[in-house]
Amino acid sequence: MKLCSFRTDAQASFGVVIEGGIIDLGRRVDATSLREFIADDGLSKASAFLSEEPDYQFDEVEHLPVITNPDKIICVGLNYHAHISETGREETPNPVLFSRFSGSQIGHQQPMLKPLESDKFDYEGELAVIIGKECRRVSEDDALSVVAGYACYNDGSVRDWQKHTHQFMPGKTFYATGPFGPWMVTADEIPDPSKLHLQTRLNGEVMQDTTTDLMIASIPRLISYCSTILPLLPGDVIVSGTPGGVGARRTPPVFMKEGDVCEIEISNIGILRNIIMAEK
Amino acid sequence: MKLCSFRTDAQASFGVVIEGGIIDLGRRVDATSLREFIADDGLSKASAFLSEEPDYQFDEVEHLPVITNPDKIICVGLNYHAHISETGREETPNPVLFSRFSGSQIGHQQPMLKPLESDKFDYEGELAVIIGKECRRVSEDDALSVVAGYACYNDGSVRDWQKHTHQFMPGKTFYATGPFGPWMVTADEIPDPSKLHLQTRLNGEVMQDTTTDLMIASIPRLISYCSTILPLLPGDVIVSGTPGGVGARRTPPVFMKEGDVCEIEISNIGILRNIIMAEK
Repeated sequence: MKLCSFRTDAQASFGVVIEGGIIDLGRRVDATSLREFIADDGLSKASAFLSEEPDYQFDEVEHLPVITNPDKIICVGLNYHAHISETGREETPNPVLFSRFSGSQIGHQQPMLKPLESDKFDYEGELAVIIGKECRRVSEDDALSVVAGYACYNDGSVRDWQKHTHQFMPGKTFYATGPFGPWMVTADEIPDPSKLHLQTRLNGEVMQDTTTDLMIASIPRLISYCSTILPLLPGDVIVSGTPGGVGARRTPPVFMKEGDVCEIEISNIGILRNIIMAEK
Repeated sequence: MKLCSFRTDAQASFGVVIEGGIIDLGRRVDATSLREFIADDGLSKASAFLSEEPDYQFDEVEHLPVITNPDKIICVGLNYHAHISETGREETPNPVLFSRFSGSQIGHQQPMLKPLESDKFDYEGELAVIIGKECRRVSEDDALSVVAGYACYNDGSVRDWQKHTHQFMPGKTFYATGPFGPWMVTADEIPDPSKLHLQTRLNGEVMQDTTTDLMIASIPRLISYCSTILPLLPGDVIVSGTPGGVGARRTPPVFMKEGDVCEIEISNIGILRNIIMAEK
């Protein structure tokens, strides 16, 4: 099942995506957001609505980040050897974690903003994990049982601000730099998140291409590690790291500019597509 | 004026602190949290309630973090020369930023939890700034006009997890490690946040002692820099960095253990006091 967040006529909602369009769940259930719906165990009841007529064509709504208001967005750095190599950094025994704030997120097809302050605006295609159940210190063996679903994420990075200091966060949370979509595919359809194919394309050209079995810290390991630190809550997002091929490490470097189109495609999920707009 | 968040009989609320106790604003206004009250421009109306009788003695409620659910908690690292020197790091021209999640926060007098996973649990006394107005790219000259108030913060740090990798966040956001209180003093009573005296005491012994004019990036600079990245919202918190004297850099190192009492006192604000409890 695919679930998305969207807006119509300034009303935010969420729904199930079927072939013919979107069935608006926001008008059918009590929850006011997909995060709340997941927390209310809505995923177990959502299939009851699948036979209804869609309320909107998928392309006639404004897409929002899959989870618009996560309590946490935990990003993982340097989680593929090919990316570690290109950065010249060293592998660490534990995951490299930093964060993004929800105000930095956008939805599928919303403009991805290159900020005024930088011309070093880069893509990072990643697999996002959406947590379904509150958990603490979950074991790696049990970790996949707390996952609600998976989505594509573009961890848009302002490289010069990322390197202002040794802490990455400033370059990783600029306004409207983090596309998250186009929808979430529920975990029952992806029994093993290490068996996916991820590709990032800039203006149609393949820039990143990997299989997710090449992650250094697996999805279960990431969930177990993060949940050791503090409780994970329904709707929390773990953005699991980018493979090799980022723009900043190419020769010559490739940075995104006004009018570029960046797509993140993950098998079994779909294509997250955004046009770059330069702030003026 | 002093404002605090608290809980009584499992009902969370917030109020004004006066000499005789707390006037419960949660039952007198529409807002459900101090964050929402600030966003609704409540601070300009709160003085109307000052003549009422207090509903509770200050010590008979359970204190909660001043802002229980901030959209952002932005922490600043290495913002005093004395702390940079003791860590052996180098000064950076831009502020060192990382984040904490709201699930890591606690209130005044709530137990500060040393996690199971570590015996390297350290204090960091800091001045917290609470944002009062949504703003983006605010200039340093205008920055203090967006401040709602100030509070004490203890950026409790799990040092070994902070050093698992080069990114600090894991060691800085463990569950129940971040005391924030005892209340917020509104900005009108602190016209210049660089003229404060901050002290951290562990079991009564002074461990950190500074004046806030020694910050490298001033409060206006921090607000301006952070608001360049993305909009700051009412209730957002900037935790402005710790001075020299942290436990990990002492000879021999001093780490907090069960039963220790840690106090952060800031002039014109008050004393934030927490007992350390070890998770079992």
